[in-house]
Amino acid sequence: MTLDPVLARIDETLDAATDRLLKLLRIPSISTDPAYAQDCDAAADWLVADLTSIGFDASKRPTKGHPMVVAHAGTTGPHILFYGHYDVQPVDPLDLWDNDPFDPQIQDTAKGRVIRGRGASDDKGQLMTFIEACRAWKDIHGTLPARITIFFEGEEESGSPSLTPFMRDNADDLTADIALICDTGLYGDSTPAIITQLRGLLREEITITGPNKDLHSGMYGGIAMNPARVLAKIIASLHDEDGRITVPDFYDGVPELTNELAAAWDDLKFDDAAFLGAVGLSIPAGEKGRRPLEMIWSQPTCEVNGMISGYTGDGFKTVLPSKASAKISFRLVGTQDPFKIREAFRAMVQTMLPADCTVTFGNHGASAAGQMSTADPAFAKAKAALSDEWPNAAAYVGCGGSIPIAGHFKTILDMDAMLIGFGKDDDAIHSPNEKYDLSSFHKGARSWARILHALAK
Amino acid sequence: MTLDPVLARIDETLDAATDRLLKLLRIPSISTDPAYAQDCDAAADWLVADLTSIGFDASKRPTKGHPMVVAHAGTTGPHILFYGHYDVQPVDPLDLWDNDPFDPQIQDTAKGRVIRGRGASDDKGQLMTFIEACRAWKDIHGTLPARITIFFEGEEESGSPSLTPFMRDNADDLTADIALICDTGLYGDSTPAIITQLRGLLREEITITGPNKDLHSGMYGGIAMNPARVLAKIIASLHDEDGRITVPDFYDGVPELTNELAAAWDDLKFDDAAFLGAVGLSIPAGEKGRRPLEMIWSQPTCEVNGMISGYTGDGFKTVLPSKASAKISFRLVGTQDPFKIREAFRAMVQTMLPADCTVTFGNHGASAAGQMSTADPAFAKAKAALSDEWPNAAAYVGCGGSIPIAGHFKTILDMDAMLIGFGKDDDAIHSPNEKYDLSSFHKGARSWARILHALAK
Repeated sequence: MTLDPVLARIDETLDAATDRLLKLLRIPSISTDPAYAQDCDAAADWLVADLTSIGFDASKRPTKGHPMVVAHAGTTGPHILFYGHYDVQPVDPLDLWDNDPFDPQIQDTAKGRVIRGRGASDDKGQLMTFIEACRAWKDIHGTLPARITIFFEGEEESGSPSLTPFMRDNADDLTADIALICDTGLYGDSTPAIITQLRGLLREEITITGPNKDLHSGMYGGIAMNPARVLAKIIASLHDEDGRITVPDFYDGVPELTNELAAAWDDLKFDDAAFLGAVGLSIPAGEKGRRPLEMIWSQPTCEVNGMISGYTGDGFKTVLPSKASAKISFRLVGTQDPFKIREAFRAMVQTMLPADCTVTFGNHGASAAGQMSTADPAFAKAKAALSDEWPNAAAYVGCGGSIPIAGHFKTILDMDAMLIGFGKDDDAIHSPNEKYDLSSFHKGARSWARILHALAK
Repeated sequence: MTLDPVLARIDETLDAATDRLLKLLRIPSISTDPAYAQDCDAAADWLVADLTSIGFDASKRPTKGHPMVVAHAGTTGPHILFYGHYDVQPVDPLDLWDNDPFDPQIQDTAKGRVIRGRGASDDKGQLMTFIEACRAWKDIHGTLPARITIFFEGEEESGSPSLTPFMRDNADDLTADIALICDTGLYGDSTPAIITQLRGLLREEITITGPNKDLHSGMYGGIAMNPARVLAKIIASLHDEDGRITVPDFYDGVPELTNELAAAWDDLKFDDAAFLGAVGLSIPAGEKGRRPLEMIWSQPTCEVNGMISGYTGDGFKTVLPSKASAKISFRLVGTQDPFKIREAFRAMVQTMLPADCTVTFGNHGASAAGQMSTADPAFAKAKAALSDEWPNAAAYVGCGGSIPIAGHFKTILDMDAMLIGFGKDDDAIHSPNEKYDLSSFHKGARSWARILHALAK
């Protein structure tokens, strides 16, 4: 089966494909808000209908939360699973949007045409690139070049509570030779990327209690231990002068960058000045002596994601607070063990506690880092296919974030996963005025057409 | 003029006096809430009428905010000004009150009878002790033993915006030989106290900005400076290992306790275990080697009154925050200069700032510590009079809090002030179920009758 007519079909039908995406974007499938449960259901129905229209055996699968969509098509070739999610983030603050987030618009911008609306990039626009590639293959050749299982969830933006139980209960229905995950971005504006390493994530909450109620700082100030001071001391001690994290044995399992990967990453010519400059910063803040890309891809972190104590409203109250709490997360790499690190962190906090204070810990989940094995020939095939489509050759890159689905495919279904996506850094996912470049949508569909062709060879 | 019949009159008329206080307590004069402006006005009217009924030349004086009450009576003897405030704190959370806060009740408790309601102790019950003493003098002798000016404000619980302009504009009307301020408490349950030193207060807010917007900690964690980490380091550095405050030159002007005062305070047998135990603590947290009473009365402090950064709601968001801020206050003693300390604190913060971060400072006011000169014979006279009334001899004590009115009498009207009050630690002022012991009300009135008698000698 030839590729070129498929690519031409995608080019010719771009307007119709865009219209389909706009229809899906008009469904306000906000998963975290129960008020939109029916809309999540409607989005699943819409996808089942669309997939059925191009020959998939598609069904909506109930869960305790929002439904999954599972669809199968194709009878020959390798078995490929494609994953995306049809649910979207909430839209507030609504007044920062230039248009109704669920009345998506095609807009001309200085950087080209964009599709503006909630979910345009994350993840409806991305998942539709794969469906459009399948549609074009079907239109031209009457069949698909591979056995394809499509798997969409509707709870990705609300913690995926049903995901792993569903994967376990439906392992036979979901297991394939390899998984494709489309929920990430290009490297820069025109370099396609396959993510081969993901950081893990350990999320902890600590609450220090000093006095058993808020006190008046005139009456008690000086004699009563202030838990905000204790918390500040703990947080301040988590990094040393060189920016290394001080939790005991924290660096067990953190690998040094291989020479090969170091060279490949250097070739990416990461512009840390531009990356930081875009957010008002200029100085890489990680461990001294590390490459900036190491700081975000291959080195672990410890970040305060939130902290609060005492009176934080307008004006001033001279309260001596009873409690001080912080949400602290660790991004993990290599074979760092999130459970050992949790224990070491908690023990370290305990040792820093004055005798008068107590601490409670909140467990917000832990996942290890992910490392894809690029030895699977599918990686090289996909890399070559992407390189054919885009101005720059494709790159194996790291990802500072944590995408648990990749780990689940490995641990539950024993499948490797390739994370390939076409989002851009300025897509404003999770923010007002989310957009997806029309070129991402168009070349994304073309990329999947090429990848299917390459994997089927 | 003899004292004993005056005291007897107070005893005989206690029920009527209590009824009068209940009437005043029924007026919801919450000064901070504009919805209660008419009630503040009504409370002032009620006081003018009551003072007029016992021979005062009393008037309500308009301000830009709530009115003042000024009243004069007496033609001979020393000229004494008495200060109190008729406004009260808000009452929320209302569901924690056992009765309507503005439907005051006389209740029997394990510790004796109490008057329960908003303002019972702070400050309507206290100010009425003085009026009742005057009423009894008038009833028995037809006149007062001294020239008395009464000065009530209605904005004490909302920052006293009109106070100093009014004092300046009405200096002739308000200046007397000495001021009596009734807005404080007993030392313990049965030791009357005259406060001779008050801590000053410097209130600062600092806001550290790192990135120019909140970032995703997966994408930026490790390379972007986290302002919460910077703030924590600054706060952690404000005290050394011995609990001393590290702001440069901070201790300039902090006097050592005189041997005389040290002995007097040791005589008070301050029970720090009980004081701290009541709020769930056990270890005095101030500078090592200091007496607990020094920590709250005569040593300066640095406290975090509030801090906030990033996501602080339920659950977890892996945000890398743009900003981190803290409200920090310093209690000052002796001749510490609040303005110099503000500059030194701000300079210290600046030096701790990474090159990538900026800081803004919010100024929430500064006042120096107050030190009364007990050399004025009025102090010894009042001390003896109080000692005659109560089971224990009166004490000169310090106060960890900051009561600006005392400083204003000194700086604006060049008057010394005696702070004498009959509140108890468990009065729950500013809290639900505020109360004033009936014994405080009764013996408070008797105390003022004695003090007027003593000062007139």
